[in-house]
Amino acid sequence: MAGASLGELATRFGLTLRGDPEIVVQSVATLQGATAGTLSFLANRKYQRHLASTGASAVVVDEASAAACPVAALVAANPYAAYARIAAVLHPSPSAVPGIHPTAVIDPAARVAASASVAAHVVIEADCDIGDRAVIGAGSYLGQGCRIGADTRLAPRVTLYAGVTIGARGLVHSGAVLGADGFGLAPDRAGWVKVPQVGGVTIGDDVEIGANTTIDRGAIDDTTIGHDVKLDNQIQIGHNVRIGDHTAIAGCVGVSGSTTIGSRCMIGGAVGIAGHLEIADGVVVTGLTLVSRSLTEPGVYSSATPAMEAGDWRRVVARLRHLDELFDRVRSLEGKGRGPVPE
Amino acid sequence: MAGASLGELATRFGLTLRGDPEIVVQSVATLQGATAGTLSFLANRKYQRHLASTGASAVVVDEASAAACPVAALVAANPYAAYARIAAVLHPSPSAVPGIHPTAVIDPAARVAASASVAAHVVIEADCDIGDRAVIGAGSYLGQGCRIGADTRLAPRVTLYAGVTIGARGLVHSGAVLGADGFGLAPDRAGWVKVPQVGGVTIGDDVEIGANTTIDRGAIDDTTIGHDVKLDNQIQIGHNVRIGDHTAIAGCVGVSGSTTIGSRCMIGGAVGIAGHLEIADGVVVTGLTLVSRSLTEPGVYSSATPAMEAGDWRRVVARLRHLDELFDRVRSLEGKGRGPVPE
Amino acid sequence: MAGASLGELATRFGLTLRGDPEIVVQSVATLQGATAGTLSFLANRKYQRHLASTGASAVVVDEASAAACPVAALVAANPYAAYARIAAVLHPSPSAVPGIHPTAVIDPAARVAASASVAAHVVIEADCDIGDRAVIGAGSYLGQGCRIGADTRLAPRVTLYAGVTIGARGLVHSGAVLGADGFGLAPDRAGWVKVPQVGGVTIGDDVEIGANTTIDRGAIDDTTIGHDVKLDNQIQIGHNVRIGDHTAIAGCVGVSGSTTIGSRCMIGGAVGIAGHLEIADGVVVTGLTLVSRSLTEPGVYSSATPAMEAGDWRRVVARLRHLDELFDRVRSLEGKGRGPVPE
Repeated sequence: MAGASLGELATRFGLTLRGDPEIVVQSVATLQGATAGTLSFLANRKYQRHLASTGASAVVVDEASAAACPVAALVAANPYAAYARIAAVLHPSPSAVPGIHPTAVIDPAARVAASASVAAHVVIEADCDIGDRAVIGAGSYLGQGCRIGADTRLAPRVTLYAGVTIGARGLVHSGAVLGADGFGLAPDRAGWVKVPQVGGVTIGDDVEIGANTTIDRGAIDDTTIGHDVKLDNQIQIGHNVRIGDHTAIAGCVGVSGSTTIGSRCMIGGAVGIAGHLEIADGVVVTGLTLVSRSLTEPGVYSSATPAMEAGDWRRVVARLRHLDELFDRVRSLEGKGRGPVPE
Repeated sequence: MAGASLGELATRFGLTLRGDPEIVVQSVATLQGATAGTLSFLANRKYQRHLASTGASAVVVDEASAAACPVAALVAANPYAAYARIAAVLHPSPSAVPGIHPTAVIDPAARVAASASVAAHVVIEADCDIGDRAVIGAGSYLGQGCRIGADTRLAPRVTLYAGVTIGARGLVHSGAVLGADGFGLAPDRAGWVKVPQVGGVTIGDDVEIGANTTIDRGAIDDTTIGHDVKLDNQIQIGHNVRIGDHTAIAGCVGVSGSTTIGSRCMIGGAVGIAGHLEIADGVVVTGLTLVSRSLTEPGVYSSATPAMEAGDWRRVVARLRHLDELFDRVRSLEGKGRGPVPE
Repeated sequence: MAGASLGELATRFGLTLRGDPEIVVQSVATLQGATAGTLSFLANRKYQRHLASTGASAVVVDEASAAACPVAALVAANPYAAYARIAAVLHPSPSAVPGIHPTAVIDPAARVAASASVAAHVVIEADCDIGDRAVIGAGSYLGQGCRIGADTRLAPRVTLYAGVTIGARGLVHSGAVLGADGFGLAPDRAGWVKVPQVGGVTIGDDVEIGANTTIDRGAIDDTTIGHDVKLDNQIQIGHNVRIGDHTAIAGCVGVSGSTTIGSRCMIGGAVGIAGHLEIADGVVVTGLTLVSRSLTEPGVYSSATPAMEAGDWRRVVARLRHLDELFDRVRSLEGKGRGPVPE
C-alpha cells in the first residue's frame, strides 16, 4: 500500500481540501463499499444518494457536492480526473524489473534498452528497438523492425508483425495483434489473388489498445493511429485507417479499410464503419450504429433500434416490409397519387 | 475408444432401454452419418426424418419417438442431456499428465497442486494457487495472485492478469483474456486520464469461457461471473459487469461496464448491452439486438431486422427517414392536427 | 529490394507495355505517394484524378485509362489482380529458414518435413504432420493429430486444437483459434450439461484466416471450410458450419452453428448469420445485416440502417414503436377496418 495524506494529495493535484490534511488514505473504494482508510469519489449524480452514508475517509467531489460530503472532501473542478490521478498514486502499477528473461529469444540485431524489461518466452526479431523502461510481457512476439517507445508496456501475449511502431507511454493489452495483413483481395477468374500488404502500422504516444483488438498493416502506406487514442477490447481496424488524436473507441467496433476518423471522436460499442469514409473531428456515434457514409459535420449519430418485447418487434418488422406501400397509400389518401421514393 | 454397453449406459444414466443390453457402442454419430457401433440421438423434430434409415446401433430418443426407432433405443425424458452425458463417456477428454513441463516458468511463491498439469511455456507468477487436477495449457500466462479451482482446465494460450479467481470444473478456451483493464477514462482538458483498474475478476464453478473472449477486471470492485455461466467465443464483458448463475451468452456479444445480468438469461449472438443496466433473471435476447435500457421483466426481447433483398431494403430505409412526417400526414388526414412524438 | 524491369513483368504476367521495357521498378506505391522507381496502379475510378500527377515510374492500368497515363503503363484487363501479382514479386514474403528452433517442444510422434520451419516456443503434439515448406510461427500451439499442408504458414501465436487439418498454401494470422469446442449445451434441471464436441475442423487449400478469428470444431462431424475461402479478422464460425469455395467474409462476422454458406459468397463486416440456415452460392450480404432465414437465391441482402443525426433517429425509433398502429389508422382512413398483420 502506497498511502498518502490528504494534504499531500491536495497540494500535488491542486485540489481544495475540506478536512484534516493529516488523514491518510491507503486505497480507493466505491462510495457504498468504502471503509476507513479509503478514498472514494462522486462524479456521477446517479450515485449522489450514496454520499451521505459512505464509510470512506475522504471523497473527491465537485464544488456543488462538497457541502453534502459527510467526511473529508477533496474538491476538484473535474472530480473523475482528479480521482484517476490519485488512484494511480495509491495503486501504482507494479514496476517491472529491468532485464531480459533467460527464456526470451532476442535477435542479436535487435536493440533493447538496458532499463527495459523483457519477460519470459518473448521473441524479438532483428532490427527491433525497445525503448527506455519499456516492458514486453511474457510470450509476446515482435516481428522485424518494430519500435517501442519509452515507457510503453506490452501486456503478455501481444503480437506485433514486422514494421510496427508504437510511441511513448503506450499500453497494449493481451491478445492484441498489430500489423497482420489487411484484407486485400483482387478477384480474378480462378478465384482470389492476394494483394501483398507492404505498409506498416504507426501508433502515436499515450495510446491504449485493448485486449484482442486487431489493427491491420497498410496495403502500401501505413495504418496510422494518433496520439492519446484509446481503443477498447475486440476492435478491428482495417488497413490504411487513420485515427486522429484523442479519439476513443469502445469495444467490438469494426472500422473498414482506408477510412479516416478525426480527432476527439467517440465511437460507441459495436459500431460498424464502412471503408473509404471520412469522419469529421468531434463526431460521436452511439452503440451498434452502421456508418456507411462520410460524416462531415461534428454531432451525434445513431441508427440502432433499442430492444422491444419480441412479439411487438415482430409486428414492427412485418409492417416495415410494407412501409413503402404505406407511404403510397397515404399519398393516395391525400389525393396526390403515387410519387417517387424520396432520397 | 472407451466403448460401453447399452445396459451399462441405461443403468448409469437412469434410461429405459428398448433393445439388447449387450450391444456395445464405441462412439457417437449423427443419425445420417451413423454406422454400426455408434450411438446417435434425436432431440430436434427437424431431424426425425433421418431416424428410420439410421445406421446407428442405438439412438437416444424421447418416449414419443421410441416406437419409430428402428434400432435399440435409450429412452430419456431429456434426450439431448442424456446424449451429452453418454458422449462424455464414449469420448473422454484426454487426461493431462500431472506435473510441470520443464519449459514452464513458475514463481517460487506460487502453489501448484501435485495433481495439476502445467504445460510447456506456461508462466505462473507469484502467489498463484493452482488447484487439484487443474490443467494449464501451453503458453498460458497467469499473473500474480490468480487462483484456479480444482479440475479447471485452461486451454493453450489463455491470459489471466493478476488477481483473477476461477472456481472448480471450469474450462477456458484459447485466446481468452481475463482481467485486462476496463475501459476507464476521465476526459480532461489535455486529453484522457487513465482511471486505474484496481478490481479483479471472480468466476464461479462450472463456467465455460469461449475462445478469444475477454472479461475486464473491475475498476474498484471485481467483475463477477456466477456459477454454471456459459460464454461463447469472442464475447467482451466490461468492467464490473455481474452475470448470474446459469446464464448463457452466445458469440460476439458485448456487455458494457457495470451492467448486471440476472440468472438463467439467454443472450443471442452479437447482442450489444449498454452500461449501467439491470437485466432481470430469465431474460432472453435474440441475436443482434441492442439493449440500451434495463429489462426488468423476464421475457424475450428483440430489435434486429432480418435481411431483405437489398433494393427493397433501401426503399424501406429511404421511407424510414420520412417516418416522422408520415405520422404527421396521417394525423392530418384524420383531422386531428399535428401532435407531439409519443414516448 | 527485388526489383524488376517492366519488360520482364509484362512478359511474365501477359500485360501490354506502353513504355520503355528497360525501366526498373523496386517497390509499389500509391499514385499520390509514388516516387521514381516505384510502380503504382489504378483500379478504382475514384483515384483517376491522381493519375496525371503521379511520380511513379510505371502504373498498372486498364485499357481505358492507358492513354491518360503520363508514365509507362502496364495495361491489364484486370489491373488490380495484375498489380497484386507484381507486388508479390517486388515484395516477396521473407522466406523462413527451414528447421526447428531449439525452444520448440515437439512430440516425438509428430512428423515435421525437413523443409518446414518451426519457430521459437512452438508446441506440436503427437501425430501432427507438418508439410513441406510449411511455417509454424513463434508461440503457436498444435494439438494432437493436426495436419498442415505444404507451403501453409501459421503466423505467431496461432492455436490449433487437436484434429485440425489445413490444406496447402494457407495463411493463418496471429491469435486465430481453430478447433475450440462449439457452443453445445443441453439444458437440464440442474443447469447446463456440456455436449462433447468430438468433430474436427477441415480447411481446404489457399485459405486465409484473419487475426483473432475463431473456428469451432464440429459437435460430431467436422466444421468444413472450402478452398480459396478468405476470412478477415475477428470472425466467429460456429460448429459444423460449412463454407463453400471462394467465399470471402469480412471482419467481425458471426456465423452460428450448422449453417451452410455456399461458394463465391461475399459477406460484409459484422454480419450475423443464425444457425441451421442454408445460404445459396453467390449470395452477397451487406455489412451489419442479420440473416435469420435461409437465403435460397443468389442476390444482395441487407437489413442495417445507416446512421442519422441522433435526434432525428430518436424520432424514427419513437415512431417505429407505433408503426403497427399507424397501419391500422391508415386502414381505418381507407375505410377498410383493421386487418391482420401481413406475413
